[in-house]
Amino acid sequence: MKQVNIALFGMGRIGKIHFRNIEQHVPDARIVAVADPFLSGSPDGKNSNIFFSKNADEVIAMPEVDAILICTPTSSHADLIEKGIRNGKHIFCEKPMDLSLERTVVLSSMADDAGIKLMLGFNRRFDPDFMEAHKSVRAGAVGDVQVIKITSRDPGLPPIDYIKHSGGLFMDMAIHDFDMARYIMGKEVVEVFARGLNIIDKAVGEAGDIDTALTTLIFEDGTYAVIDNSRKAVYGYDQRLEIFGGGGMIQVENNLHNRNVIYNEQGIRHSLPLDFFMDRYVHSYLNEMKLFVDALKNNKPMPAGGADALKATQIAYAAKMSVELGRSVKLSEVKVKPEKVR
Amino acid sequence: MKQVNIALFGMGRIGKIHFRNIEQHVPDARIVAVADPFLSGSPDGKNSNIFFSKNADEVIAMPEVDAILICTPTSSHADLIEKGIRNGKHIFCEKPMDLSLERTVVLSSMADDAGIKLMLGFNRRFDPDFMEAHKSVRAGAVGDVQVIKITSRDPGLPPIDYIKHSGGLFMDMAIHDFDMARYIMGKEVVEVFARGLNIIDKAVGEAGDIDTALTTLIFEDGTYAVIDNSRKAVYGYDQRLEIFGGGGMIQVENNLHNRNVIYNEQGIRHSLPLDFFMDRYVHSYLNEMKLFVDALKNNKPMPAGGADALKATQIAYAAKMSVELGRSVKLSEVKVKPEKVR
Amino acid sequence: MKQVNIALFGMGRIGKIHFRNIEQHVPDARIVAVADPFLSGSPDGKNSNIFFSKNADEVIAMPEVDAILICTPTSSHADLIEKGIRNGKHIFCEKPMDLSLERTVVLSSMADDAGIKLMLGFNRRFDPDFMEAHKSVRAGAVGDVQVIKITSRDPGLPPIDYIKHSGGLFMDMAIHDFDMARYIMGKEVVEVFARGLNIIDKAVGEAGDIDTALTTLIFEDGTYAVIDNSRKAVYGYDQRLEIFGGGGMIQVENNLHNRNVIYNEQGIRHSLPLDFFMDRYVHSYLNEMKLFVDALKNNKPMPAGGADALKATQIAYAAKMSVELGRSVKLSEVKVKPEKVR
Amino acid sequence: MKQVNIALFGMGRIGKIHFRNIEQHVPDARIVAVADPFLSGSPDGKNSNIFFSKNADEVIAMPEVDAILICTPTSSHADLIEKGIRNGKHIFCEKPMDLSLERTVVLSSMADDAGIKLMLGFNRRFDPDFMEAHKSVRAGAVGDVQVIKITSRDPGLPPIDYIKHSGGLFMDMAIHDFDMARYIMGKEVVEVFARGLNIIDKAVGEAGDIDTALTTLIFEDGTYAVIDNSRKAVYGYDQRLEIFGGGGMIQVENNLHNRNVIYNEQGIRHSLPLDFFMDRYVHSYLNEMKLFVDALKNNKPMPAGGADALKATQIAYAAKMSVELGRSVKLSEVKVKPEKVR
Repeated sequence: MKQVNIALFGMGRIGKIHFRNIEQHVPDARIVAVADPFLSGSPDGKNSNIFFSKNADEVIAMPEVDAILICTPTSSHADLIEKGIRNGKHIFCEKPMDLSLERTVVLSSMADDAGIKLMLGFNRRFDPDFMEAHKSVRAGAVGDVQVIKITSRDPGLPPIDYIKHSGGLFMDMAIHDFDMARYIMGKEVVEVFARGLNIIDKAVGEAGDIDTALTTLIFEDGTYAVIDNSRKAVYGYDQRLEIFGGGGMIQVENNLHNRNVIYNEQGIRHSLPLDFFMDRYVHSYLNEMKLFVDALKNNKPMPAGGADALKATQIAYAAKMSVELGRSVKLSEVKVKPEKVR
Repeated sequence: MKQVNIALFGMGRIGKIHFRNIEQHVPDARIVAVADPFLSGSPDGKNSNIFFSKNADEVIAMPEVDAILICTPTSSHADLIEKGIRNGKHIFCEKPMDLSLERTVVLSSMADDAGIKLMLGFNRRFDPDFMEAHKSVRAGAVGDVQVIKITSRDPGLPPIDYIKHSGGLFMDMAIHDFDMARYIMGKEVVEVFARGLNIIDKAVGEAGDIDTALTTLIFEDGTYAVIDNSRKAVYGYDQRLEIFGGGGMIQVENNLHNRNVIYNEQGIRHSLPLDFFMDRYVHSYLNEMKLFVDALKNNKPMPAGGADALKATQIAYAAKMSVELGRSVKLSEVKVKPEKVR
Repeated sequence: MKQVNIALFGMGRIGKIHFRNIEQHVPDARIVAVADPFLSGSPDGKNSNIFFSKNADEVIAMPEVDAILICTPTSSHADLIEKGIRNGKHIFCEKPMDLSLERTVVLSSMADDAGIKLMLGFNRRFDPDFMEAHKSVRAGAVGDVQVIKITSRDPGLPPIDYIKHSGGLFMDMAIHDFDMARYIMGKEVVEVFARGLNIIDKAVGEAGDIDTALTTLIFEDGTYAVIDNSRKAVYGYDQRLEIFGGGGMIQVENNLHNRNVIYNEQGIRHSLPLDFFMDRYVHSYLNEMKLFVDALKNNKPMPAGGADALKATQIAYAAKMSVELGRSVKLSEVKVKPEKVR
Repeated sequence: MKQVNIALFGMGRIGKIHFRNIEQHVPDARIVAVADPFLSGSPDGKNSNIFFSKNADEVIAMPEVDAILICTPTSSHADLIEKGIRNGKHIFCEKPMDLSLERTVVLSSMADDAGIKLMLGFNRRFDPDFMEAHKSVRAGAVGDVQVIKITSRDPGLPPIDYIKHSGGLFMDMAIHDFDMARYIMGKEVVEVFARGLNIIDKAVGEAGDIDTALTTLIFEDGTYAVIDNSRKAVYGYDQRLEIFGGGGMIQVENNLHNRNVIYNEQGIRHSLPLDFFMDRYVHSYLNEMKLFVDALKNNKPMPAGGADALKATQIAYAAKMSVELGRSVKLSEVKVKPEKVR
């Protein structure tokens, strides 16, 4: 593939980010079409050669399209993936593939069978600091990894309506951390122990979800990761990672608004962490597009594929079960029900 | 009590610290006697008015002694406590009171019944930074506490012989952290989930112990603490605390050797944490003596008493059971067996 | 002005940065022409509507051009500014306007008389952290400013050939810091005391320059700034600012490669500062383009104009004189020689 | 000398510190006598074998006294030193020896001629962090030192009455920093450029002093140190050091009240620097006593002697002259007037 022609589905805030990143910073790719029911032109009025449509089917069938980017609401991911596969398009899809484990399995296999490359938007893997930590671990900077600790707290509650349809804290939020734990460890999770609380806002509990959670992931060799989630840290988006091993420790610290420190009678004050995920992970979004295009152009494996999506989803299910059952849950208990696989 | 007359039992390294702290920094107390089978004089040759003996019974019976400090090996703690109570002496004892839960219960009640004040050497409670964190929490600096995270890693393995008789990682090491969690939270633990690993040195496993552990403590209101222990952090003694609440977060960071930062081609380098517990907690040992003497002199409750020792010991038992059973254990399952209570 | 049409002169590395920033991130401006003797097309092959020429005169005369960006070598700045003024174009010029004080004065006046807006590329003023510090000072965060300390060290020596034509350390490097001191203080410098050393590489001294300098700037009210320059910090580009006042202090710290911290037996290690000026000041370059275009579009004063260039140049001259004379030099001693003004 | 018998003069706050340090932490020394016009017993009532007197002459003549500690007001230092020398006692004296350069020279020579060991209380040299920095520099951690930057700000103005008799900011405060610069550099100062301001409180100016100063010290090889002093930093006692060399940089950071960090909506807040000099330099005072006694006992040179006192005093004079003359002053201009030498 000389240049990758991309069609983008869903020009919401994440769609716009991918659009601009490709147009401006990925020389080997270009956007040839955009499908969005509410938009009919370029977001900044400078792009003239792009086909804009309100009809996704029309766009997915365009022969010049090599790959599709799915940035639509979660509920439409699976159908678009399936259509993409049937039309022979490579696929980048924002996480999750689907809330159903069964459909995740099926789509993952379908893509493999059809030789379709599928990448999931686990954006944190592509954050420069986490990538650097991953590289340091692989280079032996801490020896054998014994324990991973992830702190992952949002700056505030999402709308209750979002919570009702998101699949819940483990599926919409902690899933990133589950993927991060696997990414750093390079091993598989076999057991999950999770506790969940509803202590921030009763409305969350009424919507059937928790807002605070602690999850222990046990890996195949007995080592573990512990993940601490909260829907609301008043000081902003708290995204930290600690990797402890026989040879040392790596900490990935928060990314602050600025590097200014103010001293006065009250203390020594640093600025708060970047608190909007698009600011915090601005480099991740660019990196994932570059890697997606590079994998297509140079026929490399995708850096986060269907199997990764499936594993993270399974862990999220296990965590939910663990909270409900009040005991740890083996990943093997999270069964894909064959009758549900179409 | 105008001045507190103290007899000290066991002039090992911790005994020497208490000896000097009282002689030099606690004006309201003085050492009147020292019992140690291997020592017959003052550690620095300056103290002339102190009675030195190799016979503990002789010392414990001295009428001028108001209080005793027990700094002997663990196995003799309980007997000395009992003798102290019978002789009407107030007691400061290094932790633990005893490895047996039953005897801990009995001694605790005996002391209460006899009007004996009993303090346990949970030294970390008296570290200035942890005290300040406790004060900040009580003052509402982080709102309602939702999660506590304790990192507690030793700089190196103790002798295997020590491990064989210490009661194991939960009883000799994590017990401090269990106490810290209760101290900060101000609530009681009802359930414990723990994982233990032997990944640092096989000899530890052969001695029947683990060297790495992760413990989740569930409090009565569902909030939790997670404690990460390792017998060996190559970068030194790692003692951190993070308290997250609805109004913010407090982190207690490590205490480094110095405040010098060296920049060169390799990076920006800070010094390592203080790695000997006596250096790291030098102020704690002084504070605990001051508070012990203050409680005696002014008839105040002891800042860490028999009930605290009992709770921490129970949690350590529960953690051990949790590792063995592979499930979380309710504190109510850790039964004191009545037939074992003499 | 509805949209600002810009012609860019000099497509070297700084020219390319401005080109991309305007094309991608400044909606109110567009590049209509590029003049560069060595280039005849777009740097990334995506821009079709731009006129590329090797002839600067041809481009400067284009009627549709509203403003010019001068990114050529220093020696051509003054002539291009003069041509820009004569052709009625607004001007953004990389610093310095000219090494001659006289010509700087003349061009500055010419632009004013002709109603031409002129902005100089003192990029550090537009760094988000320094802007934030400036804002905090103006908001009274440190009360009245008493002392400013600037650390400004390059990661390595420039080519000796560059040093020969740059005007020397004070003119090519410290001039940024002189401007920063004026920007933060909001007051004028009246006296300069500087020391210069050649201790890094003899070749620098043979080229007639120094490689290490300490400059004290005395402001009109007696307060002062001290600036510490080195051509070579082995740990990278060191760009720090400290502002001390009656109400507190602000420190602007270095911008590190990443936020990862590695602990091992040797210490606690952070990554080095960003060491390439284009990485360190990537946001400054974008901000200065946005502000330049905003000032044109909305008829605002330029944020760093000819008068600022003149002052910084005068201070650089005074610093050089101070080193040569071995005494402090009043700014009033740095005379513009009328016979040199054409 | 088997054990060093010490007589202490002046049981003010610094006298008490030395008293306790020797009694408690310096096994090779003991206090045999204390002379203080206002005190007639031990500060904590525990020491029985010490001779307390209101008569300094009586104490200085005691044959069993090996060494004297002079902790009295500055105005009596010189006379006590002279009497000590005449009585053959070794001497530790708080800085300065005397405000007069002449008398400092004379006493320094007298001591040398009489074989009397004389140590001056430049306490900061004995701070563990600064000692470590000194050691790192000597070990080559930063290569050849090119620039030293000292920040030295007091937490608040001293009483105006103190200022009137102290010799002024350079003599009572910056003198420590002048000594520090020589200590780290290991070279001699040849020229001084200083600026002084009275901007904190008019009363300081009315008392003939400045409250803010910037001093550049030029060393014999042309390298330099810059020292930034203020009588009042609202955030506390600010004591920092930066050492820049061809191989890297060392920063000695402030010593904070605690290691707790509080995160809330307003920012990330650390505690303030220790703001009382006795807390900040508690270890320095102990180290200097240990080194004084060690030098006596083992016949080593004193770590900070008369020549050091003389140099620091000369620099202070030069700094004062520089402010008055508005130019840099060579140290050779600070002449000891022979007619003033008795």
